[in-house]
Amino acid sequence: MRNIHVIGIGAGDPDQLTLQAVRALRSTDVFFVLDKGEAKSDLVRLRRDLLDAHVPQGTYRVVEARDPERDRAAGGDAYSPAVGDWRGARAGIYARLIAEELGENGRGAFLVWGDPALYDSTIGILDEILDGGSVRFEYDVVPGISSVSALAARHRTGLNRVGRPVQITTGRRLAEGFPEGVDDVVVMLDAQQAFRTYADEDIDIYWGAYLGTPDEILVSGPIAEAAPRIERLRAQARERNGWIMDTYLLRRNP
Amino acid sequence: MRNIHVIGIGAGDPDQLTLQAVRALRSTDVFFVLDKGEAKSDLVRLRRDLLDAHVPQGTYRVVEARDPERDRAAGGDAYSPAVGDWRGARAGIYARLIAEELGENGRGAFLVWGDPALYDSTIGILDEILDGGSVRFEYDVVPGISSVSALAARHRTGLNRVGRPVQITTGRRLAEGFPEGVDDVVVMLDAQQAFRTYADEDIDIYWGAYLGTPDEILVSGPIAEAAPRIERLRAQARERNGWIMDTYLLRRNP
Repeated sequence: MRNIHVIGIGAGDPDQLTLQAVRALRSTDVFFVLDKGEAKSDLVRLRRDLLDAHVPQGTYRVVEARDPERDRAAGGDAYSPAVGDWRGARAGIYARLIAEELGENGRGAFLVWGDPALYDSTIGILDEILDGGSVRFEYDVVPGISSVSALAARHRTGLNRVGRPVQITTGRRLAEGFPEGVDDVVVMLDAQQAFRTYADEDIDIYWGAYLGTPDEILVSGPIAEAAPRIERLRAQARERNGWIMDTYLLRRNP
Repeated sequence: MRNIHVIGIGAGDPDQLTLQAVRALRSTDVFFVLDKGEAKSDLVRLRRDLLDAHVPQGTYRVVEARDPERDRAAGGDAYSPAVGDWRGARAGIYARLIAEELGENGRGAFLVWGDPALYDSTIGILDEILDGGSVRFEYDVVPGISSVSALAARHRTGLNRVGRPVQITTGRRLAEGFPEGVDDVVVMLDAQQAFRTYADEDIDIYWGAYLGTPDEILVSGPIAEAAPRIERLRAQARERNGWIMDTYLLRRNP
């Protein structure tokens, strides 16, 4: 039976791989890498560097495929109505990769930034392929250090306060209103910098970009002071690198 | 300057240590281990096994101290009103350990189950000691695989659904009501099995205990069917081991 690992490779620091992830990497014949286009090619390179560092050369192949473009015009962030189509298209590509590139007892892997459990579609897509029945395989999931954990560690803060909840949400949802019933909110996938909406409230922000990489930027403090600074640094970094991955914690003072 | 690592050591599987955590372990002279009493002594042993596996013997010392007992009679879970006193008592013990057991340039470490960012008091206590000024040190935080990540990986599910939020909360809070504005809720620290309150709702539960250890138990399914099974397994395991660490995800079908 074909076997596939979905491997969380951490937020960017190659030392944030777990021993389990390294073992999974070393037991893999074929890595599937979906290139999201020129702007994100740094991310493809980072993954290749990771393999070079941890897996003996000649023991594996890397198969690259072009990620189906999402219809960004329709929405603005990752969750436009086009997401269903996109997921179907991606499932089709994954199914073909698995069927054509992996022998009957082959071991493949998808490398996922952060933790496969948070805002990642790989598990859902593999389940969709299995439901479709076009190709059979087994798979397991290797958890990774999420950007959320990496962010909290770099700022040396907890995500929750004592006995209180924390919510993890998207920039799009934050733009619709501060979540009910929580004062600690982690925001991912925020291309619109929705935190600016709350700049006049008594909230502290803990922000980080390119966490764990040499380009890492950290800013924290009262949101009124920090927001303009983040906005400036974010624009500069995005200009410089051509892409940005950032996340932040908002902590409202009751 | 004294230097202290707060190291997330994962949920129980020794292979879920990160390379960064292993490096931090190996650069440590003195490990501080707080024993929470006989019932949890398995946990102390697990940590010692971890050190045996990853750090050359003779390069470090382990200093054990007795954790101040929390006034459990007052509350029932970790967040009784006694928490302030307990934290102060713990800060006093930590400060003394650091001052007495660590030389001026010594390197100490606290090992934290899971991720230090989630429902752990170590960071807060170290900040309290530094604020108090009785002993000076620097510290850093090494993120770990939380039981939340481990749970999701073992059940091969995401924590959030596409574009939707997830909340992480306590059993005590869940008992007060299902959190507003979310359908995906991760519950930690639930000695009362608050999930039973929702057994007649259209909710799926993904439950796990002793994640990543040989004693691991996983149950998932519609809560009406799964809840009695979890209750039974949980009672048996607790009886057998003398303690239990479990966590779960509730996924409400809209």
